[in-house]
Amino acid sequence: MTNKNTYNLLSQINIPADLRRLPIDKLPQVCEELRRDIIDELADNPGHFASSLGVVELTVALHYVYDTPYDRIVWDVGHQAYGHKILTGRRERFSTNRKLHGLKPFPSPSESEYDTFTCGHASNSISAALGMAVASANQDEKRRHIIAVIGDGSMSGGLAFEGLNNASSTPNDILIILNDNNMSIDRSVGGMNHYFHQLHTSSLYNRLRFAASRKLFNWGWLNENRRKQLIRFNNSLKSLISNQQNVFEGMNIRYFGPSDGHDVIELVHTLRVLKDMKGPKLFHIHTVKGKGFKPAEKAADIWHAPGKFDKETGERIQTDTSNLPPRYQDVFGQTLLELARMNPKIIGVTPAMPSGCSMNVLMKEMPDRAFDVGIAEGHAVTFSGGMAQDGLIPFCNIYSSFAQRAYDNLIHDIAIERLNMVLCLDRAGLVGEDGPTHHGAFDLAALRPIPNLILSSPLNEKELRLLMYTAQLPNQGPFVIRYPRGRGVLTDWQCDFEAIEVGKGQLLKEGKDIALLSLGPIGNTAAEAIRLFEQQQAQEGHPLTVAHYDMRFLKPLDENILHEVGTHFSRIITIEDGVICGGLGSAVLEYMSYHDFFPKVTRMGLPDYFVEHGTVEQLRQIAGIDRDAIVSQLRSISQK
Amino acid sequence: MTNKNTYNLLSQINIPADLRRLPIDKLPQVCEELRRDIIDELADNPGHFASSLGVVELTVALHYVYDTPYDRIVWDVGHQAYGHKILTGRRERFSTNRKLHGLKPFPSPSESEYDTFTCGHASNSISAALGMAVASANQDEKRRHIIAVIGDGSMSGGLAFEGLNNASSTPNDILIILNDNNMSIDRSVGGMNHYFHQLHTSSLYNRLRFAASRKLFNWGWLNENRRKQLIRFNNSLKSLISNQQNVFEGMNIRYFGPSDGHDVIELVHTLRVLKDMKGPKLFHIHTVKGKGFKPAEKAADIWHAPGKFDKETGERIQTDTSNLPPRYQDVFGQTLLELARMNPKIIGVTPAMPSGCSMNVLMKEMPDRAFDVGIAEGHAVTFSGGMAQDGLIPFCNIYSSFAQRAYDNLIHDIAIERLNMVLCLDRAGLVGEDGPTHHGAFDLAALRPIPNLILSSPLNEKELRLLMYTAQLPNQGPFVIRYPRGRGVLTDWQCDFEAIEVGKGQLLKEGKDIALLSLGPIGNTAAEAIRLFEQQQAQEGHPLTVAHYDMRFLKPLDENILHEVGTHFSRIITIEDGVICGGLGSAVLEYMSYHDFFPKVTRMGLPDYFVEHGTVEQLRQIAGIDRDAIVSQLRSISQK
Repeated sequence: MTNKNTYNLLSQINIPADLRRLPIDKLPQVCEELRRDIIDELADNPGHFASSLGVVELTVALHYVYDTPYDRIVWDVGHQAYGHKILTGRRERFSTNRKLHGLKPFPSPSESEYDTFTCGHASNSISAALGMAVASANQDEKRRHIIAVIGDGSMSGGLAFEGLNNASSTPNDILIILNDNNMSIDRSVGGMNHYFHQLHTSSLYNRLRFAASRKLFNWGWLNENRRKQLIRFNNSLKSLISNQQNVFEGMNIRYFGPSDGHDVIELVHTLRVLKDMKGPKLFHIHTVKGKGFKPAEKAADIWHAPGKFDKETGERIQTDTSNLPPRYQDVFGQTLLELARMNPKIIGVTPAMPSGCSMNVLMKEMPDRAFDVGIAEGHAVTFSGGMAQDGLIPFCNIYSSFAQRAYDNLIHDIAIERLNMVLCLDRAGLVGEDGPTHHGAFDLAALRPIPNLILSSPLNEKELRLLMYTAQLPNQGPFVIRYPRGRGVLTDWQCDFEAIEVGKGQLLKEGKDIALLSLGPIGNTAAEAIRLFEQQQAQEGHPLTVAHYDMRFLKPLDENILHEVGTHFSRIITIEDGVICGGLGSAVLEYMSYHDFFPKVTRMGLPDYFVEHGTVEQLRQIAGIDRDAIVSQLRSISQK
Repeated sequence: MTNKNTYNLLSQINIPADLRRLPIDKLPQVCEELRRDIIDELADNPGHFASSLGVVELTVALHYVYDTPYDRIVWDVGHQAYGHKILTGRRERFSTNRKLHGLKPFPSPSESEYDTFTCGHASNSISAALGMAVASANQDEKRRHIIAVIGDGSMSGGLAFEGLNNASSTPNDILIILNDNNMSIDRSVGGMNHYFHQLHTSSLYNRLRFAASRKLFNWGWLNENRRKQLIRFNNSLKSLISNQQNVFEGMNIRYFGPSDGHDVIELVHTLRVLKDMKGPKLFHIHTVKGKGFKPAEKAADIWHAPGKFDKETGERIQTDTSNLPPRYQDVFGQTLLELARMNPKIIGVTPAMPSGCSMNVLMKEMPDRAFDVGIAEGHAVTFSGGMAQDGLIPFCNIYSSFAQRAYDNLIHDIAIERLNMVLCLDRAGLVGEDGPTHHGAFDLAALRPIPNLILSSPLNEKELRLLMYTAQLPNQGPFVIRYPRGRGVLTDWQCDFEAIEVGKGQLLKEGKDIALLSLGPIGNTAAEAIRLFEQQQAQEGHPLTVAHYDMRFLKPLDENILHEVGTHFSRIITIEDGVICGGLGSAVLEYMSYHDFFPKVTRMGLPDYFVEHGTVEQLRQIAGIDRDAIVSQLRSISQK
């Protein structure tokens, strides 16, 4: 366990004001302690690791220079914000991070006044910061300083560009810090990344710059007052030497850097100069993801969220999973490869999640037939649309909550022309510790109204394989397959391929008194609940039986099943792991009403509030969609 | 009417292959005739005017140089594609453009093999073109040429940037033509626009370039073979002289231009050189929106879609509207100004539609309190979120179908923290001639599942004012107000402000036999239908009466009304001008089911297919939500 006593400085810092009372030469030690504290905490309590290690110095420098919380630091994605949390009054509670009712997984204004905006989805920081700058200009006598901290990976998102584009023409003094580690979760890709790399390697400029600054320092010119001149000198030098007009400067945003993001003293000096400079500015720093923990520096992708580990040896503590069912993402990855071998029209597309969705399996064997397009969900879908329009069958895999960013693309660029594109939504339903920004809650309800879509969710791994096989058959039109984070229920899952009839569900179990209709893997929980319920009923002398249907498709609905259920049952339960408002339950009500059936329908699903973070099991219980909740609804409806 | 006989060349061109048989020196005449034809057609049959005039030469040059339809031209937004339609076999039918069952408003692959991708929403062309390039590389022995034509306004959309970013790192040979006229519908804004402007005005470079090319021509060097060298020379010259590294070149996309987009011969020569050049390329041309029709050149915003006009005098034929009710957008614009005068926290935000949504009224009086952020719907919402987080009350106005692009922003950046942001959705419901890409069909169903949102739609202009007033009161949380294109129903609409209780509907008319629940202005049609139905019933000797409730809010629903209706009525009709799947009707079913009411509910709304183009009246009839359809449903349900 962590020994908090060895943190001589950190233990004195309860809030950033305490940090700001320290002399500047203590900051390297603060950084060392903060980094050690993060490693200590994360070794036992898994979370996002490598990102936060990379911004230790930046975090300390920002809170040292700026008057937080009056000044606003907007973190882009919260992976990087653990140091920020520890310095802003949450050190003692940090062991509760990501746990039910504990600290939230990402910064959240409802948790701390130091957290300025919802973060979780990439690329929103510049837009939000610009809004805050307008708010301060309109309201505050003393202008707030507004700082957005954005990774190079997040810069590939269109929203970041829209923010930059608008920042350059709206009056504001925001500082954008580009934290460039050439990584998002996997390695960053795309043209901007190429461009950042060019900025790094303009070696003549960097040599000259450092030589010049050393000279100025030796001559005694390098003090607080002169730094501003130095930075300006550096920028002039840059445009003189490198024959480059900077992209950002072309857009009217002043560019500074690249600088070493691990030199806290230098960062403080630079931030002090930039602090009161007018107009939008971008400060480019170079950091190493996982900095200070060797195994993470070497493999930042694995150490993005490594689980528990031994902080001495750097060994990740992994449990033996060989006897467990596979993760749905593994089934997706393996099956996609098998299908791609059979069907040359198949292409894989992922927005920056090759390992997260296991598309790296296809990438490894067929690098020409899988595309990581960067954090760019809208583009991922429209790019797939272009391929589908000209005859390919793209499998585009996006985490459900991130796919909210491609809603218009799916309607406008795919559904209107009924293109043969397969959209796989991983992480659908409750995702657990990543909390409300990451739950895949809205996909079913939001996609159901879109004409021409096929909307499906597999009961288990075999069904996932069969749906994927079915989706790539000719002329299917847009085909959505949603499945959850985590493991399936079968160890023997590698079945042969056969087609499923689109819009056809299956009767899993016969019964006479109540019909239960489920969609997706939650059907397995429902099956358990039904067994338990029937046992209880039998024991209590009221033997009732439940018919269980796996709908498989939310759209088109299996009207044969619904007709059968409407005809024979007056009591129906629907269950889905999406929002209860507008999903399967509503679709069943619509059918029954239209066809003049009037059964009692109990709809189970996610509630109409944002479900917090915790383990998936805990959250299912809270949301009322776990086994016991289903049993309880069966008992309740059986009494009607 | 148009005299087709004066079109000596155009009348010989049925498809682009005919064009390609002409000698190059005939092309200026083709352009002249094409431009005249567009003016002739549009004078009588209103449509998008100025954009298509601006790209006459580009359109001719593209079809002359490329082997369409094998080669793919991807138009970004279809405003500019009338010339393309006329040259691709649709000249004879062009008088049916935008009319019911006539030519579609925007290029559409289901209409013509020359139309390569759905266009309507800006900024998707680069992503789609890149997908097509991948498709061709994977399938075609002879590679297709793929050309995306994108306006400078569309370049502010994040999707365009995501496409560029990915194009620069994916193997492809696409040509992106940046059609720069410094306009989208209103004047373009933002950093990229500033950047393009810099590219234009790098005068030393341009002087040198033209001087050099004249010299080369005089020396007899300027022929087809040498053009490639010339273009390369121009680019080297540029980087030498202008001390600029081009943004696009920084992203690995070769940049050419800027060139005069109205010199068709020069365009053909340049395109021929670029045609077989490997790798992604961007060709920047400068055009004048409305080119060749003086009034449109002077006021391209007004002439974006001017309605009928006199082609000789340039006078727009406007009918006297002084006695008509105002357009909803006018009520929005005027009311926003009134509220902004009263409440200093109010700020206006529009993504490139200041005149389209009438936010120009606020902009004119308070330029510091209204922001046109460019075509960037996602940013518009997140930027508003930043303001709301720090205490302002932004009124962000987005056309309903474009707001689909901000779906995640609304969930992630607004709803989770329950920020006080007002989202006004103009052009909700059926929009008429712009067709399926532009109907605001999905907003109600897509937004209803989002927790914390208030979702409202006014019955008429007064209600719009009152909802807007209510939305800006303290601590309302995110407040959505949706209203349609076109005029309201009241001439006397400038009522005093008073608050509406959130979640409270109103009984418009008492009745005993059937309850009709409506949401939004379609309630006025429903009221007419009810009058007619009751008259008919009375005449037929079966006097029945209908209770009419205006729900006002889809979320929260007025449960008092629903309880009353559930208690007293066994026959209910719901009507809304959004998709029937998941909207008001579904919400009513959910309530009734949950509370153990079992009425017969007939849900009326937009069908589960993409409704085509035509007048709003025609489309309402087709979709089954006009007055007669309501009467018919009332009669039908009255017999149950």
